[in-house]
Amino acid sequence: MHKISIIGLGQIGASIGLGLRKKIKGVEIVGHDIEPTTAGKARKIGAVDKISYSLPNSLEGASIVIVCVPVEAVKQVFDEIAPSLEEGTIVTDTSSTKIQVMQWADEILPNNVDFVGGHPMAGVETPGIEGAEQALFEGAAYGIFPTVNVRPESVDAVVSLVNLLDAQPLFIDPVEHDSLVAGVSHLPIALSITLMNATAQSASWREMSRLAAGSFRDVSRLSSGSVDMHHSIFSTNRDSVLRWLDSFDIQLKQFRAAVEEGGDDLRELIESAYQSRSDWLSGKVKGANDSIQNVPTASENMLGMLGGDKLAELSRKFDKDSKNGPSGR
Amino acid sequence: MHKISIIGLGQIGASIGLGLRKKIKGVEIVGHDIEPTTAGKARKIGAVDKISYSLPNSLEGASIVIVCVPVEAVKQVFDEIAPSLEEGTIVTDTSSTKIQVMQWADEILPNNVDFVGGHPMAGVETPGIEGAEQALFEGAAYGIFPTVNVRPESVDAVVSLVNLLDAQPLFIDPVEHDSLVAGVSHLPIALSITLMNATAQSASWREMSRLAAGSFRDVSRLSSGSVDMHHSIFSTNRDSVLRWLDSFDIQLKQFRAAVEEGGDDLRELIESAYQSRSDWLSGKVKGANDSIQNVPTASENMLGMLGGDKLAELSRKFDKDSKNGPSGR
Repeated sequence: MHKISIIGLGQIGASIGLGLRKKIKGVEIVGHDIEPTTAGKARKIGAVDKISYSLPNSLEGASIVIVCVPVEAVKQVFDEIAPSLEEGTIVTDTSSTKIQVMQWADEILPNNVDFVGGHPMAGVETPGIEGAEQALFEGAAYGIFPTVNVRPESVDAVVSLVNLLDAQPLFIDPVEHDSLVAGVSHLPIALSITLMNATAQSASWREMSRLAAGSFRDVSRLSSGSVDMHHSIFSTNRDSVLRWLDSFDIQLKQFRAAVEEGGDDLRELIESAYQSRSDWLSGKVKGANDSIQNVPTASENMLGMLGGDKLAELSRKFDKDSKNGPSGR
Repeated sequence: MHKISIIGLGQIGASIGLGLRKKIKGVEIVGHDIEPTTAGKARKIGAVDKISYSLPNSLEGASIVIVCVPVEAVKQVFDEIAPSLEEGTIVTDTSSTKIQVMQWADEILPNNVDFVGGHPMAGVETPGIEGAEQALFEGAAYGIFPTVNVRPESVDAVVSLVNLLDAQPLFIDPVEHDSLVAGVSHLPIALSITLMNATAQSASWREMSRLAAGSFRDVSRLSSGSVDMHHSIFSTNRDSVLRWLDSFDIQLKQFRAAVEEGGDDLRELIESAYQSRSDWLSGKVKGANDSIQNVPTASENMLGMLGGDKLAELSRKFDKDSKNGPSGR
């Protein structure tokens, strides 16, 4: 029987377990978490079939190991699993920044295992296993980051995993990834945290808090995310985040000047943001050719079209004992 | 038959119509909008019983006139309605900033009508009548701003209206209101607009936009709001907004320094935002005694407790021909 090992059963790890559990049978999902109660909950909600209180034991016989811990903890997990990984094991992760993780994988993991980084771009407000959802990744972009010497079939296996979660696999360069997510993910987190601090530290916060409504709730939402995860993000993606904070600061100064002057500039800034968001929501963003590669997905019926290729082979591997595999969807 | 006139049938005006229509019978709701097609839609969805293409005609016989237009348009509406308002009419509005509106009311409206400003702190992403919802104000804070010489029963009537919408009436000083909402409402709007502009104007926007997920969606959401409304807000609440932008800028610099240094400060800032938001969500905000006065609501069964007081009288006025008035809820 195939075995998948999930290390770290927070929102992402437990959601992956729930998502895979729904799609594949005949594969055993073993989970480990540093907090035994979290591991227990993961088993209770059906995110894993079995829990292992020992990290090395949880790897035994696993063909894929999915590391779902905050970026800063990835190094320690790599150190701990490196001696016990069996030859040919595929290791992937889910952390939000990639340059640092790819370096750790290169330095720490043995040469006879294949590391393929991953980044599911999805999440809900509630941190930890309490926020886990079976459909968390449905339709979400999922970055895939193969290391240089990785076997193609290991990449395909991770792509299959992503397809099973109904996410959209994308190939991106790790350096580019970290720079891009600094703008669309880490900058919003920084703004959310800073809005929360700026208002809550005000002398009028008690009164203000009673008037705070949907607009405040939305923009401050990200500050309720996992403190560890956020700390990890800003620590491991420092330079890109600093560049984006500076770039935001320039824009905010422009906006401030426009409010102060109260002329046409103000209306133009408001209108341009309105238009840009509308274009984004309707998928009308124009620009140069794209450096992000789409990967064919099972739902586009590419498996059939590609016949006997490796992606299909690997998906069949998952399918073998399954009643409801990706090609059967 | 009592008559209520709603001027401006966008998201707020139409939602008020829908909300009142559900709660009171035997009162005629007449609507007017500068756009005849909007007025037509309002009638079609049942937000108003009747539309009037002439602004003065829409006022005829109305005991309450609710002005629901962007702040900047309020002055013009006041100018246009002033000559036609009948003695004793109660006029209220719904605009997001209050100092300017209270001044206009004082200068423009005749002395024999009663102006009681209002600010429902609710709204959804979709601007205009397309975003109208019958339950939009349920549980929302609703600021009430009586002018100095207004009759108490006119204030009570507006309080009753707010109760009928299931909102929470609050008395606040207009100057304090504008300063408080600059922090919890207008600052988030400014951040949302600026985030959208900062990212969409980047050379990598096309790629970034494909990775933008829930976090970006939330923090940028407000930039999809009504351009006119946002322009009005920043124009009429300039000084408070500038103060809050400066205060945010100081906090953002602190955050930037903490990211650059990567020490304990970073974790403390993330943790303090997490804790503040958690306290806010659970209603545990502590602070000095509150300058915002709560108003007893019908749902707290205060009407009965207060016996024959004016609030109850006025609510009964609404109730008279109604099958499902506030005291019957």
